[in-house]
Amino acid sequence: MLINKTYKRALKSVLGMLLVSVSWQTQALTCPQLTNVPLPPKCSSIDLESCNAAVQNIIPAAACAIFEVSPAANDATLVLRFTTLITNSWYDATAPYHPTAKGVYSDIARMPEPEDNSELNVALSYASHKVLSGLFPHLAPEWDSMLVEMGLDPHDLSEDTTTPIGIGNYAGRKVLEGRANDGMNQLGNEGGQLYHRLPYADYTDFKPANTAYKLRFPSKWQPAVLMERPGVYRVQQFVTPQIALTTPYSYESPDEFTSPVPLKSKIWNYPSYVAQVNDVLNTSANLTDEQKMKAELFDMKIFSLGFAAVFASESQGLSLMDFIHYDFLTNMAAFDTAIAIWKEKRRHNSVRPFSAVRFIYKDEPVTAWGGVGKGTVNDLPASQWTSYLPVADHPEYPSASASFCAAHAETSRLFLPEGDVLSYTVPALAGSSQIEPGITPQNDLYLYFPTWTSFEEDCGNSRVWGGVHFEPSVPAGQAIGREIANRAYQFYLSKVAGQ
Amino acid sequence: MLINKTYKRALKSVLGMLLVSVSWQTQALTCPQLTNVPLPPKCSSIDLESCNAAVQNIIPAAACAIFEVSPAANDATLVLRFTTLITNSWYDATAPYHPTAKGVYSDIARMPEPEDNSELNVALSYASHKVLSGLFPHLAPEWDSMLVEMGLDPHDLSEDTTTPIGIGNYAGRKVLEGRANDGMNQLGNEGGQLYHRLPYADYTDFKPANTAYKLRFPSKWQPAVLMERPGVYRVQQFVTPQIALTTPYSYESPDEFTSPVPLKSKIWNYPSYVAQVNDVLNTSANLTDEQKMKAELFDMKIFSLGFAAVFASESQGLSLMDFIHYDFLTNMAAFDTAIAIWKEKRRHNSVRPFSAVRFIYKDEPVTAWGGVGKGTVNDLPASQWTSYLPVADHPEYPSASASFCAAHAETSRLFLPEGDVLSYTVPALAGSSQIEPGITPQNDLYLYFPTWTSFEEDCGNSRVWGGVHFEPSVPAGQAIGREIANRAYQFYLSKVAGQ
Repeated sequence: MLINKTYKRALKSVLGMLLVSVSWQTQALTCPQLTNVPLPPKCSSIDLESCNAAVQNIIPAAACAIFEVSPAANDATLVLRFTTLITNSWYDATAPYHPTAKGVYSDIARMPEPEDNSELNVALSYASHKVLSGLFPHLAPEWDSMLVEMGLDPHDLSEDTTTPIGIGNYAGRKVLEGRANDGMNQLGNEGGQLYHRLPYADYTDFKPANTAYKLRFPSKWQPAVLMERPGVYRVQQFVTPQIALTTPYSYESPDEFTSPVPLKSKIWNYPSYVAQVNDVLNTSANLTDEQKMKAELFDMKIFSLGFAAVFASESQGLSLMDFIHYDFLTNMAAFDTAIAIWKEKRRHNSVRPFSAVRFIYKDEPVTAWGGVGKGTVNDLPASQWTSYLPVADHPEYPSASASFCAAHAETSRLFLPEGDVLSYTVPALAGSSQIEPGITPQNDLYLYFPTWTSFEEDCGNSRVWGGVHFEPSVPAGQAIGREIANRAYQFYLSKVAGQ
Repeated sequence: MLINKTYKRALKSVLGMLLVSVSWQTQALTCPQLTNVPLPPKCSSIDLESCNAAVQNIIPAAACAIFEVSPAANDATLVLRFTTLITNSWYDATAPYHPTAKGVYSDIARMPEPEDNSELNVALSYASHKVLSGLFPHLAPEWDSMLVEMGLDPHDLSEDTTTPIGIGNYAGRKVLEGRANDGMNQLGNEGGQLYHRLPYADYTDFKPANTAYKLRFPSKWQPAVLMERPGVYRVQQFVTPQIALTTPYSYESPDEFTSPVPLKSKIWNYPSYVAQVNDVLNTSANLTDEQKMKAELFDMKIFSLGFAAVFASESQGLSLMDFIHYDFLTNMAAFDTAIAIWKEKRRHNSVRPFSAVRFIYKDEPVTAWGGVGKGTVNDLPASQWTSYLPVADHPEYPSASASFCAAHAETSRLFLPEGDVLSYTVPALAGSSQIEPGITPQNDLYLYFPTWTSFEEDCGNSRVWGGVHFEPSVPAGQAIGREIANRAYQFYLSKVAGQ
């Protein structure tokens, strides 16, 4: 039904994507996650005046570095800090070429308005080189070749802010320095760590209330046991709890953003607690292929948020300068959202569905998804219930993914010329599932998002379909995401007005 | 000093290795861990009568599969179970060609004594194909090409035990079936797990006494926090505690093997507890390059135990049949040792040095190794002290590595024609350290092991140098390893006599 209903629009959208990829050609790739992704050819010295180095050169290279840290790009706080610093450096490095804009971390004298993309591409590329070299120093040769491929000299360290190279180098350095000690502990030096420094390690002494072995507090978060390799299991640790203490771009303190207490997750609300568990089981028992594929799509932030932004920019014909502003705005909004959401995750410290299901029904048989290729089974001991998506390593409430999608959608609605209109289709071909490869979906699906609102809603709901969230988590996350998106947009407007 | 003293013998031994590798040539390799390892050429259909398919074909292929599960091959219980099943299949598949031997899991009618290696190579290769396909089913194409490269047909499923192919297939299947439900939970089905089966998962409900966040019981094991990727941290879980319940080859119950209580690790023995901590700090402050490189060598079981066995077999001119017996014996002895050691690790559940050091001295500055390239520093807050080797994911006492090396050395002394003589040299070239690459050792070192006794002693002590064990753990582990080696040898003798 869904296929028929949306087939025409889907086909149009897919054809558009294919045309883009045919005209761009597919290139040799450097990380397995991008193997089947049609990428544009790289900018080179001959087309710097017309190409988009941010999309064509920086994003593919940076994505591979990010996948090294986060193989499915679902460690959202880390991924967002990387993408925010990179896009921030683009914004700061091109601000002098804008009629009024001022950098976030630099205030470079205004340059003549450029006639084409050359200066912007050079400036943003040198800025990216600085930021990427700081974030991923072990990949230094990669960042050098990223410039060499565009005919640029990676050893040109000029900071002469009357030239695009100097502007890029200076702006990139200022962003990196401005964010080096922002609270994320990028250098591992927070909390007085003199030796054995560990990047982005928690220095706030967060301790889970429950162990992985016993749900002593049934309303509280319990770390899950994960298979690292067959036979080698590890217990989750709350990922980057310190982002709650990290400096936001667009507001003073995350304390002004709060979510209502998740009452149904409180064990003293026993009937509601059980009803919520039953909802999880019902969803698990009735999972459709479309829900599974949407759950997987929205779990991979680069492929969902990142690629949707590139698609919207291309299809709405944004200039290079506008693309840079849009991409910085969406990432910065999501990053600022993460700060507030993590503050709330720490405060509520709320139980995940897997713990609650096992706690309520113990070894009783339940009807639910039975694992890869098993479909729905009716003799699953509740103690063995497992969510379709792997559960992330942070407390449940509010949903971070729902909040990021909402921030992304709201900034898109505010910024883009077509407002809420998106018309984005993601093909999900038969058997292309990462979780049930060769099995799901049974038939080719085309996941279609007519508007940012539909994108935002599916994204939020997909966390419930994936079994990693209870329903109240979704609106709670979305509300904060949308609120902060408006703050981020105001911040962006003030910067672009030169304040 | 060490270099001068042993230089001549080292040179002779290194030259021998180089000659071997030159005559063997280096081949294209399939996993990064073997990149710089000179491997022999593979057996092919033209030299099956004279080559050694076990060493030349099976070991390199199996090693790559093992590295996938255990990148440094230091998850010893898993690695040993893999190598024991593989070498067991060689033993069982070649038993019919021996004058008296009987398989462990099969009793195939005696075959005429072979004139060359052809039948043995074919039988052991098909047996390996069965076992490897069962242990690593996702690598099925690899196991097929392993046979194809020798001109053998992977689709020949004959179990006609009057032919080498049938003998190999049958013996391999029997080993796999005999071990499928041995208690290691290879299939993830132990403990009534119907769905979401996880291979080798604990089904014994082991719960650590301490959390990673608080050492409430200072004598007990505390799981460590590990960096999985920059920013993503995980907490250890005791690896395969169920091996304590796994069926041994050579004895009835591990209960007959015990270690004395580690009194110095008891907090109520406060002065001894502190003295033991001070010993750890002294060792850390005085680490030599040789100690660091030996610690790294013995942490990688395939490169230390596995390669030493191949070296001894080659240098002492073992026949293919003798090599098979020797390799099965050493692996089986170490596997049976693991069962008893893990039973003791569960019982004593004893604290690791990193917890004790941090517990005693808290934030006080101590003198110790300061991390990669830092050498010894005198202002290290004790709460930041870290061992040179990454600490393994099981309780401290007794030392598993010390026990495996002792079992290996004792079986070698019992089996090999030259007894205790080893004359093995492992080059450790300048900067070749995995932990301090490009830095350690400062100069080329040649780690020389004149005897199995010296190998066993250095191996045990290297766990103390590496900062992952207290001293009493080493003799405790060695005693059990040597005792079980003798039991394993008796078991082997009875099997080879046809009992």
